Amino acid sequence: MLKEKERIDIVPGTNFKIIQNKERFSYGTDAIFLSNFAKGKGIVVDLGTGTGIIPLRIYGKDKVDIIYGVEIQNEVAEMANRSIELNKLEENIKILNMDLKDLPNIFSKNTVDIVTSNPPYMKSGGALVNHDENFAISRHELACNLRDIIEVTEYLLKPLGKFYMVHRPDRLVDIIYLLREYKLEPKYIRFVQPKLNKKPNLILIEAVKGGKPDLKFYDPLIVYNDDGSYTEEITTIYGTEYQK
Amino acid sequence: MLKEKERIDIVPGTNFKIIQNKERFSYGTDAIFLSNFAKGKGIVVDLGTGTGIIPLRIYGKDKVDIIYGVEIQNEVAEMANRSIELNKLEENIKILNMDLKDLPNIFSKNTVDIVTSNPPYMKSGGALVNHDENFAISRHELACNLRDIIEVTEYLLKPLGKFYMVHRPDRLVDIIYLLREYKLEPKYIRFVQPKLNKKPNLILIEAVKGGKPDLKFYDPLIVYNDDGSYTEEITTIYGTEYQK
Repeated sequence: MLKEKERIDIVPGTNFKIIQNKERFSYGTDAIFLSNFAKGKGIVVDLGTGTGIIPLRIYGKDKVDIIYGVEIQNEVAEMANRSIELNKLEENIKILNMDLKDLPNIFSKNTVDIVTSNPPYMKSGGALVNHDENFAISRHELACNLRDIIEVTEYLLKPLGKFYMVHRPDRLVDIIYLLREYKLEPKYIRFVQPKLNKKPNLILIEAVKGGKPDLKFYDPLIVYNDDGSYTEEITTIYGTEYQK
Repeated sequence: MLKEKERIDIVPGTNFKIIQNKERFSYGTDAIFLSNFAKGKGIVVDLGTGTGIIPLRIYGKDKVDIIYGVEIQNEVAEMANRSIELNKLEENIKILNMDLKDLPNIFSKNTVDIVTSNPPYMKSGGALVNHDENFAISRHELACNLRDIIEVTEYLLKPLGKFYMVHRPDRLVDIIYLLREYKLEPKYIRFVQPKLNKKPNLILIEAVKGGKPDLKFYDPLIVYNDDGSYTEEITTIYGTEYQK
């Protein structure tokens, strides 16, 4: 079941297993934070699912009927599929190896309860992209950009359906502008700060399709204590044994 | 020079004096934070200047040619004027007792270096307004709304001129959406947090007219230590003796 350089890890906070390849595809803390922040329900679609970490985490903690993980890259989609098989979750989590822009071909409009996304952070045309990197597509907006993600999210979600995304603070203006343009009203923001008195390095955002303007903030998620150890909240996020 | 219930205070961080009336018009910490955050230069316009605290603070710390403080309410504009006279700054700070929407009648387009604003926070039509309150107009968007402020700012500023505003975090979506709509690109955000691990209760934002999209965050401004005392930064902001 495992290919060269792959290994099996435990999905944090669950008893599920996940295949990772540290040199090519592995999940980051941002996916863990997002799946902690998001509340799954009914039909869930995860855009740019990568290793399948977010579907596995959300299926592990929330009451959901089915989760679709959408991934354009063949190699990592195939790896995610093997992780789903490993946990015998083929009926619960479906990996769709396709361009998210084509989702309207297989989903009807207004049919999804929850959309999640840990998208590529880098603006296309921004930083130099090393085309030899296997994961360039996971990090740069090569295959899709923020507008594509938000446009398809608006298409998929039922009225009042929720969209959860993790992104970099330097894209906050783009994020907020596009969300409102597509009538996905930002309702909650939680900043992730490396330390108590440091600026945020990640943003967690919840938007509601057709929601009323009323933004609220959560207390920040602090990653490290002053002595460099993880804060209690981080330990809890990584350590909780979810009960299904 | 003083009217009933008025008193003279020192403008924090300067040797200037300011007239206040605690029952009717007095400045808040948000004006102090904004004037600390803003960098004055050349020609400055402060929209909704109230007691004149922001012009006095900015004139006290930065190299500026002239500052215009715009205030629609006669009573507080007159009070601000007396504070300016008290400091013999009539040549340097001009209080304009007028509706900011009429500024295009007296300013040419693209002529101002810096615009600052500590605007009313409450959305008109939102909370109930007590019309007996003298300061309802300072707190609610009765005389002008966020769009009016941003529209006139765009008119006034030179290309690459800077706009500094303090506002409530729950209006962040409106603020960012309108700023980008008017090509005032948000470049820096600083959150004010009551304590280290608490969500922000104020936002300081710097936007640049025609600026390139690239948002950066500062480390948060923390107001209180855990023991309820002011943090060192707050003490510094309130205590520094500026040299002109």
